[in-house]
Amino acid sequence: MAIADEFAFIRKLIPPRVHQSGLVEGIGDDGAIIQTSASEKQVICVDTMVEGVHFTKLTMDPFQVGYKALAANISDVAAMGGRPMFYLVSIAIPQTWSEEELLLLYKGMQALADSHQMDLIGGDTVSTPAALNLTVTVIGTMEDGNPLYRKNAIPGDLVFVSGHPGDSAAGLALLLERTRNGAFSDIEQQLVRKHQLPQPRVELGRILSRFHRIALNDISDGLASEAFEIAEASSVSLVIEAEKLPFSDELQEYNRNNALKWALYGGEDYELLGTCPPSDWDMLKRSCKEKGIPITTIGSVIDGKGSVYLRRNGRDEHLEKKGYNHFK
Amino acid sequence: MAIADEFAFIRKLIPPRVHQSGLVEGIGDDGAIIQTSASEKQVICVDTMVEGVHFTKLTMDPFQVGYKALAANISDVAAMGGRPMFYLVSIAIPQTWSEEELLLLYKGMQALADSHQMDLIGGDTVSTPAALNLTVTVIGTMEDGNPLYRKNAIPGDLVFVSGHPGDSAAGLALLLERTRNGAFSDIEQQLVRKHQLPQPRVELGRILSRFHRIALNDISDGLASEAFEIAEASSVSLVIEAEKLPFSDELQEYNRNNALKWALYGGEDYELLGTCPPSDWDMLKRSCKEKGIPITTIGSVIDGKGSVYLRRNGRDEHLEKKGYNHFK
Repeated sequence: MAIADEFAFIRKLIPPRVHQSGLVEGIGDDGAIIQTSASEKQVICVDTMVEGVHFTKLTMDPFQVGYKALAANISDVAAMGGRPMFYLVSIAIPQTWSEEELLLLYKGMQALADSHQMDLIGGDTVSTPAALNLTVTVIGTMEDGNPLYRKNAIPGDLVFVSGHPGDSAAGLALLLERTRNGAFSDIEQQLVRKHQLPQPRVELGRILSRFHRIALNDISDGLASEAFEIAEASSVSLVIEAEKLPFSDELQEYNRNNALKWALYGGEDYELLGTCPPSDWDMLKRSCKEKGIPITTIGSVIDGKGSVYLRRNGRDEHLEKKGYNHFK
Repeated sequence: MAIADEFAFIRKLIPPRVHQSGLVEGIGDDGAIIQTSASEKQVICVDTMVEGVHFTKLTMDPFQVGYKALAANISDVAAMGGRPMFYLVSIAIPQTWSEEELLLLYKGMQALADSHQMDLIGGDTVSTPAALNLTVTVIGTMEDGNPLYRKNAIPGDLVFVSGHPGDSAAGLALLLERTRNGAFSDIEQQLVRKHQLPQPRVELGRILSRFHRIALNDISDGLASEAFEIAEASSVSLVIEAEKLPFSDELQEYNRNNALKWALYGGEDYELLGTCPPSDWDMLKRSCKEKGIPITTIGSVIDGKGSVYLRRNGRDEHLEKKGYNHFK
């Protein structure tokens, strides 16, 4: 395989020097932050979805492919506490995609963009011998909140998560079994939708940025992998309590046995995983309730050196550091 | 083929509405411009290079692939009159690329970035079944100059070009004939280098932005195609005089017969093609001379509806509207 360890490879790419004084936060978090004027900060994120790796025509229709590619980037902006404003789309197109399908793909992006008041401002359109490659760049504003860096966690903090992790992976399992044209029960259909049309948590990110010290990640590669990123960036360890994981009713009804595995390692939920001081929890919980955003404490931050433990039946076990690593 | 006409397809992607008041210039020029504060504007560009379409390992080494991908984006920023500051890299990697090659690719980008005081601030790293896809996003500042829109040309303007168009296509012809490991004379080697390691014209873009009404494009798809873009955006026609095209000595010595074809349709020169009022030409020419930037008048803007004429031997002929269209 081309690259043995994606994370080690990315560390090698970090340049040895910084030229621009306006760079606030570079490589190593969900998005970069730059200072654009004395009072304004911007957040910038980029993500690529590849046919055959992140989706296939059997699991996603063109509208959903576009929608989800933009959602993944909006989620990165949300995980930094930003508000998305603009996006650019670079697309490499194989012969197997028709113009009609491509226009639907852009419509999927536009539907989500409109709901966030975002504008498409540019892009590139090229051909490729195989496998559609879709790269979206999103630019957001940080307004006046505090950035939600992964490195912000300290021992004693609570660990929380929004929504219901694992639903997306369950939906994918259903799609791989029956394809997107398969017959699904109402409950199954809800899981499938979570995979195909995820809702990024922009409003929650904005709420969290009003608190003074939140560490945050979006769950794109699975809860375990994102917990490791916070633990490593903050030089702490995290304890996740299995019994507290907020599985959805749909997930438990469809397949309770795989729920834990899907939540920890499935990814693509685009929920937010974070830590906060215990003294902030009541107010945070109340703010979320007012907006109808589900949020749950699932563990705590302890002294340590970047480990993540899963507590179940009163015992702590080391979690494996894996997620959706594209090269394994 | 997937898309019959790339330009018609892109027109269909322009959204029917704009949400953000900060959007100054969206789809349709070399880059987008957004207002980031009362006194600051930003320019943002994105470009994708695909293995087997824009380069192969036979024509470019990994360092050159990275260098050129960033150069193409810097050139777009230059064509808007901006100064590049930051870049993000999204890369989809097939099994056929080793980690060593990939690190060289990033080194190629970094070498050019350092020479422009640019910082790598983020990106994405994914796998793909075939054909390396490299997408670079560049963010620049507009400082206090005037934007160099394609739509700025009016009848009576002069048409000018920087450098020596056609060199890159000549270099590519040599590489396709002998590969990058082939034996080249000194003259041939200079043409090959123009293809592999093009120098974007940032300083010229900055000079041009001090003038009050310049239309500008960078020559990525060939001089003819870029002339059409100015003619169409400005609702005028352009006359290009064949005898005035500034072919390099190397190009004329290597292959004089193909020089015109390569200059008009070859592309990837990353020179700047523009128009200016005749009254500005002397000062513009002097400013360029001070900085050692070659610039030549090659024609004029006339009344018309988006045509481009080639004048040779005293006769005007319609130029074909073609360039490097990826889907033809």
